[in-house]
Amino acid sequence: MARLTGSDNTDEDDNDNLGVDWVLQYEFGNIDQAQAITEFQTLIHDLSEAGLRVQVRHGHGAALLVCIRVPRDHLGNLVHQSRIKDWLFGITHTLPDGDETAIADADTPSEEIRSVYHAVTWQKKIGGAGITPGFGKWENVTASFPLHDQEACAEMLRQWNRKTVLTTSDLDAIRALFGEKVAFYFAFIHCYSLFLVVPAGLGIFGWLYLGPYSIVYGIVLCTWCIVFVEYWKIREADLSQRWDVKGVGQLKVNRKQYVWEKEVKDPISGQVKHVFPSWKQFSRQMLLVPFASVASVALGALIVASFASEVFISEVYDGPFKEYLEFVPTVLFSLSLPAITSFLTSIATRLTEYENYRTQDQYDLAQTQKSFVMNFITSFLPTILTAYVYVPFGKQIVPHLDILRGLGVGVVGGQKEFEVDTSRFQQEVIYLSMTAQVIGFGEEIILPYVKHVLTQKWQNYRDRKGEYSRKRKYSTATDMFLVDSPEEAAFMTRLRSEAGADEYHVEEDIMEMCVQFGYLALFGVAWPLVPLGFLLNNWLELRGDFFKLTLECQRPPPIRSDSIGPCLLGLDFLAWLGTLSTAAIVHIYRGPISEVRLSSLLLTLFVAEQVYLGMRFTASTALEKIFSDTIRRAEASRYAVRKNYLAASLSRNSSPSSGSQGSPNGRTRHRVRFSERVNVYSSNEKDLSTEDPPSPIKEEPGNDVLRGSDREAQFWSAHSGDMADAGVKLIRALSTSKLEGAKSSKEA
Amino acid sequence: MARLTGSDNTDEDDNDNLGVDWVLQYEFGNIDQAQAITEFQTLIHDLSEAGLRVQVRHGHGAALLVCIRVPRDHLGNLVHQSRIKDWLFGITHTLPDGDETAIADADTPSEEIRSVYHAVTWQKKIGGAGITPGFGKWENVTASFPLHDQEACAEMLRQWNRKTVLTTSDLDAIRALFGEKVAFYFAFIHCYSLFLVVPAGLGIFGWLYLGPYSIVYGIVLCTWCIVFVEYWKIREADLSQRWDVKGVGQLKVNRKQYVWEKEVKDPISGQVKHVFPSWKQFSRQMLLVPFASVASVALGALIVASFASEVFISEVYDGPFKEYLEFVPTVLFSLSLPAITSFLTSIATRLTEYENYRTQDQYDLAQTQKSFVMNFITSFLPTILTAYVYVPFGKQIVPHLDILRGLGVGVVGGQKEFEVDTSRFQQEVIYLSMTAQVIGFGEEIILPYVKHVLTQKWQNYRDRKGEYSRKRKYSTATDMFLVDSPEEAAFMTRLRSEAGADEYHVEEDIMEMCVQFGYLALFGVAWPLVPLGFLLNNWLELRGDFFKLTLECQRPPPIRSDSIGPCLLGLDFLAWLGTLSTAAIVHIYRGPISEVRLSSLLLTLFVAEQVYLGMRFTASTALEKIFSDTIRRAEASRYAVRKNYLAASLSRNSSPSSGSQGSPNGRTRHRVRFSERVNVYSSNEKDLSTEDPPSPIKEEPGNDVLRGSDREAQFWSAHSGDMADAGVKLIRALSTSKLEGAKSSKEA
Repeated sequence: MARLTGSDNTDEDDNDNLGVDWVLQYEFGNIDQAQAITEFQTLIHDLSEAGLRVQVRHGHGAALLVCIRVPRDHLGNLVHQSRIKDWLFGITHTLPDGDETAIADADTPSEEIRSVYHAVTWQKKIGGAGITPGFGKWENVTASFPLHDQEACAEMLRQWNRKTVLTTSDLDAIRALFGEKVAFYFAFIHCYSLFLVVPAGLGIFGWLYLGPYSIVYGIVLCTWCIVFVEYWKIREADLSQRWDVKGVGQLKVNRKQYVWEKEVKDPISGQVKHVFPSWKQFSRQMLLVPFASVASVALGALIVASFASEVFISEVYDGPFKEYLEFVPTVLFSLSLPAITSFLTSIATRLTEYENYRTQDQYDLAQTQKSFVMNFITSFLPTILTAYVYVPFGKQIVPHLDILRGLGVGVVGGQKEFEVDTSRFQQEVIYLSMTAQVIGFGEEIILPYVKHVLTQKWQNYRDRKGEYSRKRKYSTATDMFLVDSPEEAAFMTRLRSEAGADEYHVEEDIMEMCVQFGYLALFGVAWPLVPLGFLLNNWLELRGDFFKLTLECQRPPPIRSDSIGPCLLGLDFLAWLGTLSTAAIVHIYRGPISEVRLSSLLLTLFVAEQVYLGMRFTASTALEKIFSDTIRRAEASRYAVRKNYLAASLSRNSSPSSGSQGSPNGRTRHRVRFSERVNVYSSNEKDLSTEDPPSPIKEEPGNDVLRGSDREAQFWSAHSGDMADAGVKLIRALSTSKLEGAKSSKEA
Repeated sequence: MARLTGSDNTDEDDNDNLGVDWVLQYEFGNIDQAQAITEFQTLIHDLSEAGLRVQVRHGHGAALLVCIRVPRDHLGNLVHQSRIKDWLFGITHTLPDGDETAIADADTPSEEIRSVYHAVTWQKKIGGAGITPGFGKWENVTASFPLHDQEACAEMLRQWNRKTVLTTSDLDAIRALFGEKVAFYFAFIHCYSLFLVVPAGLGIFGWLYLGPYSIVYGIVLCTWCIVFVEYWKIREADLSQRWDVKGVGQLKVNRKQYVWEKEVKDPISGQVKHVFPSWKQFSRQMLLVPFASVASVALGALIVASFASEVFISEVYDGPFKEYLEFVPTVLFSLSLPAITSFLTSIATRLTEYENYRTQDQYDLAQTQKSFVMNFITSFLPTILTAYVYVPFGKQIVPHLDILRGLGVGVVGGQKEFEVDTSRFQQEVIYLSMTAQVIGFGEEIILPYVKHVLTQKWQNYRDRKGEYSRKRKYSTATDMFLVDSPEEAAFMTRLRSEAGADEYHVEEDIMEMCVQFGYLALFGVAWPLVPLGFLLNNWLELRGDFFKLTLECQRPPPIRSDSIGPCLLGLDFLAWLGTLSTAAIVHIYRGPISEVRLSSLLLTLFVAEQVYLGMRFTASTALEKIFSDTIRRAEASRYAVRKNYLAASLSRNSSPSSGSQGSPNGRTRHRVRFSERVNVYSSNEKDLSTEDPPSPIKEEPGNDVLRGSDREAQFWSAHSGDMADAGVKLIRALSTSKLEGAKSSKEA
């Protein structure tokens, strides 16, 4: 990760962030000038009050850009405080040195930027400036982001292009730049793609020799799915230990939207907690069930209707304009889907809002769950319909669709016997694994990039035009603000471009991979080359997503997280459903469909489910055993940190200056009695202070005098000689007496 | 938990342990005297070398009792070291104060005794005396135990008899006396019994109104099973936090039997680890599969044979001696079962030995797994055979048993049509839940107690007889050893009695409860009063087990553990199998058995399994949400501990004597650059020392000067006035220009 070696001088000038830690964009196009002025004054006041330095520049159109810099001492202290908090909540195990005013060096840029993020967004009473973009009185703050480290991003992209497989240190680098949440996504897609090599290789073999719907391939695919999900769980735990983020969710601050019922001062820890009863939240969460039902019905009905009409037109209808009408259902479906999805998403958002989560993490989690449900329906339902309804039951169902014929319209084709197109299922799977992936890549990465570049060009042109017309109208003082100084010009262009960029939502990318995994698990058995297609796509996707993250989107705040979130549950669900689906597909499609009997299908499913449960248990146990070394290694490094810390604290204590601690060695020891000690939470100090020492005898080590009765002392000093001798005497005496005892019993 | 108030003086004399921390029993009846003397001398030497005080007394027969006392200073230091170790391994989060020689007060008797246990049994190089009873050169050390705290035990038994429901502080008290492993068992049986109240109450209702094989009752029972298992997992996590034992398994020391392949010095932590490859261990563990198969076949064949012959004799055979012959299979089965079980157990032990576990915990876990398999077969197979083979298929199978008739023997009954006794299944369930429980209680608790008391009486009588014959034969010095001094007599009697008592195996008691849970989950639906029977039994069992623990067995070493162990997995398995079994039983037994069709039964099972999976997921999610408060409370107390520790360490640091730490406030801050910081494991110290400070500018807080280019400084000092004013000017300028822009575009 050395600096760029070649064109250093010119590049660095362009890439330098000029010490800007954070940028806010304030838009006032839709409000009147007086309100804008008041709001903006408050904004600057709040930021300055929180100890932040600000510089203002104009943005595109009616927008201001506020550049924020946290003074280094303040920032170092924030980093230190954040580490103290980590320790208090048990995330890290070593208490950082130094008192409350100590200053710490951030280990990574993301740690630094996280502290900046906290300084800007946290509420005032916990030390931030309280700027919550787009919410409450900061509704007109439309963007809030740190600047990209272009140099580092470019270097990483260059390095990635030179290698096929990422290493853990690449992941560490992503974590250092963008925080753990983003790093977990890249770790996931990378791990998933590596795993894909196995079914891809086997898929080529299967394609050549086994054909579709092979039992062997199906079993391997299901096993692979289960093993991958279980392996990822371990990998995730491993990474969360490596990055010191295990259990990080609990120290997140309250969302500003969070409504609590009562403030509770914890009697033990003294923290003030804002409590919203969890049973209440849970019962509100139960609304997910009607929501999922409504979403399923709405989307399902849409899909079924478009599916049915498409089938009707293409396979039954024989009237005029057939070639045009065939596309109508798909077009209608594609047109109405965004509207329905956005309607459902808005309901989902309001539901999640109502569920009232304390932290942003929990909120995101709940929102992702809901969008998983919707994604699941829109992505999988069409293919499920084809596989389990259209092909097996098409012969019975499709003729009923022919209502038009019943109405006497278009009776051109006559009494043609309807034939189900059995290859339609496989065609859909091939489309999903090839064409759809390419289209998705274009829609996700290329299209937005082109759009973003063009928008920026257009706005720059407009701004320049505006500059000319504005000139000569204002005082030179104002003019200085309106015209970028030549040294800043390039930087300001970049700043405005980043301010206008989209936010990066890592959840969406994770979800996309989940859906891909779902296709593979559910339908992969129908065409053995599916994993190969996905593998190739992911090679590109990994780089494309990084490109999107660094060049298309705003740099996300480096949020911490110890997992890929609720999608993990989705993966588990898909692996389970995949096993059932693969078993059913193989059972149905291997032979002639008309010969499939329900009872044998049920038996297959039942057996498949038991195999799934057994396999999952075996996989998770085996992987845990085999990779316990990895986990142990991570633990060993934490152990080393603690050990060094211990050595340091011991040497500090043993220095002559620290005699104030009292001399524990000289303290009188006494026996721990049950009744004195049974209260586990009583503190030692209290016990020691309230209790009068019953006898001021000072014990000497080696020959400790016993408190308690004289009998004790007597017992321990009874035979003061060598105990080995005493034993020898006893052995002699007892073994003789045993012989005699045996003799005497014989005599008796 | 105050001291006993009444008969304090006399009681305490009897109950006092005279400061004896630990007792070893050395038996030399089977070896020759010279060897015994050498071994015993080594024993005393090893103990003294480890800094322990010893006293020798004679035991029953050819045995010596070695009383061990750890000097209090040494013990306090051991406790401190153990706490340091806890902190190093991340079990606790606060580093105990004091240097290596510090002395700590034990919080509970069990913490103290655990340190004594370590001092006696740990290997010499890690500071113990290396006494491993019954293994290697200490094969003749036949007992190794701490003495009971009789006073505390009696007080607890008395308290329990006064109340129906135990509280968490009772569990804390058990933990304080016997350690976490035992406390987890009592927490489990207590939690399980409380949960049983629900199905017991419903069972009475069901018995009165629903009858056996009710669908409603079956559903409630399955739900209850799933909810209970999920609740217990949460409760377990809660308790393990309360008792500070989470993840305690990893700091256990090596078993002496452990054979490692190589010594690896961890490059990070510097610990020397004895490594045995985990994949090798896992492949050895795979031997469990053939073992389980062999055990299943052996036990299964035995059970099937005895079952078949019993059925044959009672229902088909009609020859002479029928009334006697009927009992022959059961008697033969009961006689051969212990032999087969002990044979299988010995194979299991050798297997576990071969699997080569590093710690005693892992070893116990693997052994328990195997005995779970055997227990499962012996406990459940007979009833499973009755429920799923005998009753449904009896009509087809039983006539084939009649081989004797084919051979022409006993053709007395003629061509009698065979009728299956359909109530036999229910009768077995009733027997299991009532009679078998009472018999089990007697066999487990009453019988051993009577045996133990009688044995002690007999041995005391023999010893007294021996004393008379021995008198006048030895020097008075030896005589002093052979005859108990009158002050010690009562204590020595108790000591000898405890040395002769059985060891307490908590795993067996846990397993017993698991089996009971299994009966309920698998067959409970056949008779609604099953849970009531179990509830009554467990009320007694809880007290009986405590009685056994305190009065019948040796006090177990207070081993730590964070769970009830592998039985948890067993509970999960039984809840799953129970759902399937309940569904099948209800399906088969509700109507006439002859009308049951396989496909509908399969459908029932398939649906039941999905319901099970859904229910388990819902239960675990819901319970986690609802009880997150409890977990949080436990975390809050740890937070409080850390907070106090932080305050203490801050006040210590701020004392004038600790100026040696350097003044972090004065340090030069500099920007964290990506390329400098991307190596996450580089230590800060190194960075600071190797790097030359490029510019010796001292930053002042509030107006920090920026390193890096002049352009940075220029940017931040560009418009040095009030930034709010600058923004206001910009807003005015831009909103006017917007209007004009709109105007000019209109004109264009």
